[in-house]
Amino acid sequence: MNYEHIMCDLDGSLMVVTLNRPEKLNAYTGQMGAEITDAFQRADADDDVRAVIVTGSGRAFCAGADVSGGAASFDTSGQHGAGVFAAPKPGGGRFVEAIFNCRKPSIAAINGPAVGVGITMTLPMDVRIAAKGAKIGFIFARRGLVPEAGSAWFLPKLVGLSQSLRWCLSGRTFDADEARQGGLVSEVVEPAELLNRAKEIAREMTDATSAVAIALTRQMLWRFAGAPAPFELLDIDKPMSIERGGHADVREGVAAFLEKRPPSFPGKVSQDMPSQYPWWPAPSKG
Amino acid sequence: MNYEHIMCDLDGSLMVVTLNRPEKLNAYTGQMGAEITDAFQRADADDDVRAVIVTGSGRAFCAGADVSGGAASFDTSGQHGAGVFAAPKPGGGRFVEAIFNCRKPSIAAINGPAVGVGITMTLPMDVRIAAKGAKIGFIFARRGLVPEAGSAWFLPKLVGLSQSLRWCLSGRTFDADEARQGGLVSEVVEPAELLNRAKEIAREMTDATSAVAIALTRQMLWRFAGAPAPFELLDIDKPMSIERGGHADVREGVAAFLEKRPPSFPGKVSQDMPSQYPWWPAPSKG
Amino acid sequence: MNYEHIMCDLDGSLMVVTLNRPEKLNAYTGQMGAEITDAFQRADADDDVRAVIVTGSGRAFCAGADVSGGAASFDTSGQHGAGVFAAPKPGGGRFVEAIFNCRKPSIAAINGPAVGVGITMTLPMDVRIAAKGAKIGFIFARRGLVPEAGSAWFLPKLVGLSQSLRWCLSGRTFDADEARQGGLVSEVVEPAELLNRAKEIAREMTDATSAVAIALTRQMLWRFAGAPAPFELLDIDKPMSIERGGHADVREGVAAFLEKRPPSFPGKVSQDMPSQYPWWPAPSKG
Repeated sequence: MNYEHIMCDLDGSLMVVTLNRPEKLNAYTGQMGAEITDAFQRADADDDVRAVIVTGSGRAFCAGADVSGGAASFDTSGQHGAGVFAAPKPGGGRFVEAIFNCRKPSIAAINGPAVGVGITMTLPMDVRIAAKGAKIGFIFARRGLVPEAGSAWFLPKLVGLSQSLRWCLSGRTFDADEARQGGLVSEVVEPAELLNRAKEIAREMTDATSAVAIALTRQMLWRFAGAPAPFELLDIDKPMSIERGGHADVREGVAAFLEKRPPSFPGKVSQDMPSQYPWWPAPSKG
Repeated sequence: MNYEHIMCDLDGSLMVVTLNRPEKLNAYTGQMGAEITDAFQRADADDDVRAVIVTGSGRAFCAGADVSGGAASFDTSGQHGAGVFAAPKPGGGRFVEAIFNCRKPSIAAINGPAVGVGITMTLPMDVRIAAKGAKIGFIFARRGLVPEAGSAWFLPKLVGLSQSLRWCLSGRTFDADEARQGGLVSEVVEPAELLNRAKEIAREMTDATSAVAIALTRQMLWRFAGAPAPFELLDIDKPMSIERGGHADVREGVAAFLEKRPPSFPGKVSQDMPSQYPWWPAPSKG
Repeated sequence: MNYEHIMCDLDGSLMVVTLNRPEKLNAYTGQMGAEITDAFQRADADDDVRAVIVTGSGRAFCAGADVSGGAASFDTSGQHGAGVFAAPKPGGGRFVEAIFNCRKPSIAAINGPAVGVGITMTLPMDVRIAAKGAKIGFIFARRGLVPEAGSAWFLPKLVGLSQSLRWCLSGRTFDADEARQGGLVSEVVEPAELLNRAKEIAREMTDATSAVAIALTRQMLWRFAGAPAPFELLDIDKPMSIERGGHADVREGVAAFLEKRPPSFPGKVSQDMPSQYPWWPAPSKG
């Protein structure tokens, strides 16, 4: 955990990733991308981590790509562009795949400005909440750029195509309330309450649930929400249900339900994923 | 109509399917799945049936899979799991395909608790309404199971991906009002009014419409909503419109419109489907 | 610009297309389809046009296909059906592709009744607003017809599948407020304010944005919103971002941001599209 541009802490079974360049409003760098990727890959592999929360240090969440290189900040023929687009070590910057493939759910706690890659990096996460007053913008068209990090796929899945078009074709910055009305964040809370609320939501997903079931459910929803038809899924979810039905997790889940007590699931994602997983070719390792 | 776990009645052109194990809160069995499949296949074939309504007997809609087998209820190595996952006769349990392929629209009238397969079975239907106080839950992760019956495809189509993730990753039970706010049911009504309201909605889809047009429209929306692009549809909807344009249904539809009188469409789904239907390979017969 | 069934005017960088058969409530004809196609292809090619607004002349937007041929209006074995479904010159009537492929955003200003093809023609546009009192209907099933112009793909993308099913399976006509609540139009304004408001929205998409970025963003959202997964997009949006990052547009966009002044982007869609565009095979030319 020798990170430079993020901090990574554990609070019980929750990993808290904090974007940590507060003097730069946590502006994104290739280094930051590589560290986010690494943190999510660790969360994926560690059975003691059940969920990941991402927030920002200081008054911003992430002000977008670091443009301290001036007008040429995105020009990869110079030194700075390499910093924004590339990454200092192999696999760096592929944070989208790392978040998407992670077997633990993730929550963005948007504590302040989240602009450009500062907001698109949150789209592969499962929940977004924002602090009152936070400003958000898909500002790419106002810089001459295009939406990146897969956001042209993710954003319509989350808020619909009409709202995606309005935000991306104007490049306008908007506040947390508009983000909530548009479906981008699910709630807006007082800044002082933000991290606690994110942890409450995380616990809702971890306290009474099977880690293996959550890992599978995440992948089923993200990977079939965009499928053209339900038939391919039907060929997977029935055998997977049957195989899970013979697992100790399900015996415990049903017993706890019948005995009206909290369940204590023995299954671990490192050992108990069913034979159907992964049902896609060679999962990307970021 | 020799059913054991459902009842099936006709009210004019509406088929009413009632899940009928009230002493078990209409808990799902393989037998029930086979009977639902059979009822929808009959509705599909019978020109006198224009729409299907599904509701529950007694105080529940469907409390989920029958767990009266105890902790091993989902274990197919024992007798009970076979009852939940399998079906006592060929084709049983493939109710998802039967509802999806049906040429008549369907409406779920959720009169009480609808949990697990009790709610996922309603997702391939065209409309869901709920009685005040009905509790709903995608509770799979709290039993160690995964969403089934294609629900990882259906639910995001109906309520969006963010809401789907929240409900499925928590496994939380919620009430009819939250279901309405989240877009899962379109309205919440007094329990005593539920079935009447479902019939009103059904008649809205049958009274002034062509049976053939409704059958085609259902399939067009369900089968192209998830298509990656509109181009394949454009190659079908224009020739289909042209072929329909020469049918007696359209002459009647336009004449009735111009004469400001209710239309009386002669076309039947058993005989008048256009040559483009089905435009997909070998429709599943459940 | 020798149009018969539409008018086409320029207001600065905005093209205003007016459906213009007011005595027929702007009922759609093959001729009108061909002229809409032509206008959008001109807008696409002309660097001086930044956005397109479509509205109707007189009290209607578009009352649907012209049924003045009576009951046989859609019968292509007669003269009239040919007028509705076909087009008087090659490429005519393929307005869906022309709007979809256009590199300029478009806004429907629905000033009055928009029924049948009168509403489906607006679905490939980026924004829809309506005048108070405007009536809208996907009335196909009440005429014996099916939703056309790719609307079974477009409508669920814009308003979700549940709402699409309700409107299309009933064929019911509804007012502008229901259209707004259902997500079909983004706002309802006083009739006298409609065109001005459409122009304001258009300027929000043109005043501070790069024309090339807007063209790419439109295509990315429309063409990847329905993709089964984000991976194909990720293979395009990163190299495209890098290539754009070296363009004068981005240097200007970042410089203007840092200098807190409005940007003045030099890039033109006729010359400055990146090498990744088009990323799909042979774009349709209508």
